[in-house]
Amino acid sequence: MEKTAAKPGDYVEVHLTKLIYEGILLESPENEKGTVLLKLDSGYNIGFNKKDILKIVLMKKAREKEKGEFEVKKNPEKKNVAMIITGGTIASVLDTKTGGVHPLQKPEDFFRFYPELFEKVNVAKIEIPFMKSSEDMDFKDWQKIAKTTVELLNDNNIQGVIITHGTDTLHYTSSALSFFIKDLNKPVILTYSQRSIDRASSDANLNLQCSALAAISDIAEVSLVGHGTSNDDFCYSMPGTKVRKLHTSRRDAFKVVNDKPFAKIFPDKIERISEWKIRNKNKAKLDAKFEEKVALVKIYPGQNPDILDYYSKKGYKGIVLELTGLGHAPTKKSRNSWTLKLKEIQKKGIVVCATSQCIFGKVDPLVYSNGREILATGVIYLEDMLSETAFVKLGWVLGHEEWKKNKKIVKEKMLENIAGEFNKRLEE
Amino acid sequence: MEKTAAKPGDYVEVHLTKLIYEGILLESPENEKGTVLLKLDSGYNIGFNKKDILKIVLMKKAREKEKGEFEVKKNPEKKNVAMIITGGTIASVLDTKTGGVHPLQKPEDFFRFYPELFEKVNVAKIEIPFMKSSEDMDFKDWQKIAKTTVELLNDNNIQGVIITHGTDTLHYTSSALSFFIKDLNKPVILTYSQRSIDRASSDANLNLQCSALAAISDIAEVSLVGHGTSNDDFCYSMPGTKVRKLHTSRRDAFKVVNDKPFAKIFPDKIERISEWKIRNKNKAKLDAKFEEKVALVKIYPGQNPDILDYYSKKGYKGIVLELTGLGHAPTKKSRNSWTLKLKEIQKKGIVVCATSQCIFGKVDPLVYSNGREILATGVIYLEDMLSETAFVKLGWVLGHEEWKKNKKIVKEKMLENIAGEFNKRLEE
Repeated sequence: MEKTAAKPGDYVEVHLTKLIYEGILLESPENEKGTVLLKLDSGYNIGFNKKDILKIVLMKKAREKEKGEFEVKKNPEKKNVAMIITGGTIASVLDTKTGGVHPLQKPEDFFRFYPELFEKVNVAKIEIPFMKSSEDMDFKDWQKIAKTTVELLNDNNIQGVIITHGTDTLHYTSSALSFFIKDLNKPVILTYSQRSIDRASSDANLNLQCSALAAISDIAEVSLVGHGTSNDDFCYSMPGTKVRKLHTSRRDAFKVVNDKPFAKIFPDKIERISEWKIRNKNKAKLDAKFEEKVALVKIYPGQNPDILDYYSKKGYKGIVLELTGLGHAPTKKSRNSWTLKLKEIQKKGIVVCATSQCIFGKVDPLVYSNGREILATGVIYLEDMLSETAFVKLGWVLGHEEWKKNKKIVKEKMLENIAGEFNKRLEE
Repeated sequence: MEKTAAKPGDYVEVHLTKLIYEGILLESPENEKGTVLLKLDSGYNIGFNKKDILKIVLMKKAREKEKGEFEVKKNPEKKNVAMIITGGTIASVLDTKTGGVHPLQKPEDFFRFYPELFEKVNVAKIEIPFMKSSEDMDFKDWQKIAKTTVELLNDNNIQGVIITHGTDTLHYTSSALSFFIKDLNKPVILTYSQRSIDRASSDANLNLQCSALAAISDIAEVSLVGHGTSNDDFCYSMPGTKVRKLHTSRRDAFKVVNDKPFAKIFPDKIERISEWKIRNKNKAKLDAKFEEKVALVKIYPGQNPDILDYYSKKGYKGIVLELTGLGHAPTKKSRNSWTLKLKEIQKKGIVVCATSQCIFGKVDPLVYSNGREILATGVIYLEDMLSETAFVKLGWVLGHEEWKKNKKIVKEKMLENIAGEFNKRLEE
């Protein structure tokens, strides 16, 4: 292998004896001294034996670290939006030591990477309630974000709120904000990136540009704005309760399930797809109560219903069962019937709701005897609601002491279309 | 409401004061005497108040019950296939009392409804190991089906095997057969219907016709044959380990995930899409060992890792965790860290594997520190394997005492591409 001037962080070409690869050079782990590591544009790391490498050509130097504060300049002709930064890839940079990513530490770091955001709007306020990966968040984090969001929504100087967030549990958070914020008056936009910003293939710029436009639009909904396809061409504005991460790595990881996006969003225009609630003079209110003792349980063939005893013993108040097909679990005809146990735990006061692990379509307990048997135990079937949304909604409903004490009210609330979680026009 | 000659089971038109609905008239439940129930072609039941009804017009009489045995006539010019009937909608008829369906009781009932199946092939053997809804099946049922299948595959008189099955857990069974049958020599086709056969919109005929053609083809794979679109135009032959039910009610409920179908199948021709193992002279072997103490657990935000103690106490040997995103769980930075508990239970000998609840794409623990932390506890990351396939494979691998006693061998087996469960060519 020939000598090279390239250093970790540089963008290089690796010439193999057989092939040429392009990507970001990484530092070699100390236990792999004979190896050259490269982060490909596809996002995957590739390792080469040094002896297989002819030469490494430097294509583009890594960005030098800049010193000093980044100054957010305000332009009085542009509308004001607020940002809430919570962590995730969109607030991370490549770690050239590991090939992984690590979080940006300061807001000015963040803004240095996203100049496009400032072309359309003034980012008049920035809040950082915490910085964490979304998989480390729970309902307490949703409550913090909701509280900050409501404050910003009631600031007359702010047109809309953009929340940047990790992708793993972003759809749980978008559901939570949909229920936690009442009398919504302005756009609440959640956005993300699947590639850190210092990567050639980063999806952050388009997502942020479209989010900026959505934030000053009249779409007064909690919506997730992100890539509509795996190309960098447009985003969708997707209803917070009807969206789900459906791919581990693609830019268009999020898809609307059992419904339509609100709109197609380009950096410079918005094309309506369906109805939305428009911007209004309401005062947004926080209603972020949450019952922590709520579980989501996916059923599998032959599963022992004793798992329900665990939840009962641990004092759980509600369970969302992600059932098979139209909403089925093993019944009296199987070796491990769930019927009796479901009756038992509901008698003890645990609320049980049903969704489908098919994801698409709606549950219907009336088609098969199995479903009717489960329904007869008292399980609440949640039509076309997503399991993740159902989990969040059940925690929120049971968080209200005045509803919780009456099973009938809990059922009514679970079946009431509070934040677009049911699509009443869904066919087949 | 005017008087009508229509009886339950008749196909009728209901004229409302406002609108006309078409569907199958159902018997009214005894507690709803003022109600007329109709099963719409869409599959949903609709109830009307009698006072709202002008008249009911009889469109088509219900099929009269036929007497006597149905005789399967053999044609020496056609190839022989065998059928295994296990229950499910494809072996059910509408129950006009409830609007649900109930299972056909005898094979002759079954064949009376499916004459198209006999146009292309002789159904030379019929086996009915049991009749149940697929949601009531477990690994013991998979073992029974596999045993019967292997016997039929080694019958020189049989060209291929068609298994009819409920849809709820069909993809678990197709995975199980993929692992349970070694040295596969002929086509093993699993098929289904989403609408019972006496419904105008039934999808059973096309699925069975395409299955017949697939069963005499050279596709010596365990494959699921079913509608490619919601139209009645063609089917796909889908790899048994890479397929999943992704819609509760559509005919094209099953989709290949992270891979391609083997072929597009029309009633009269097969169009190749990808590679398959061809028909051969092997003797098929049964390898259907299964460890019952295996669980599938879907992670949700803030989930308490104590659930792992339950599985440990109950003597579980293996757990598939359906993690978020690229394969993450709450870590040390969250209020409910899974890291320590994962270490603990693995030290006790429980094998833990990871898949993604995104469904599409593959897990990659090396991108984020969260994944690296989970990986370091010993969790086996299963790339692009489906959670359902992973659950079945882990039970199968741990069913082998000679592998189970050595964690290294278990890991090797879990990561070995035994039945197409990994797509090594998967990009992004």
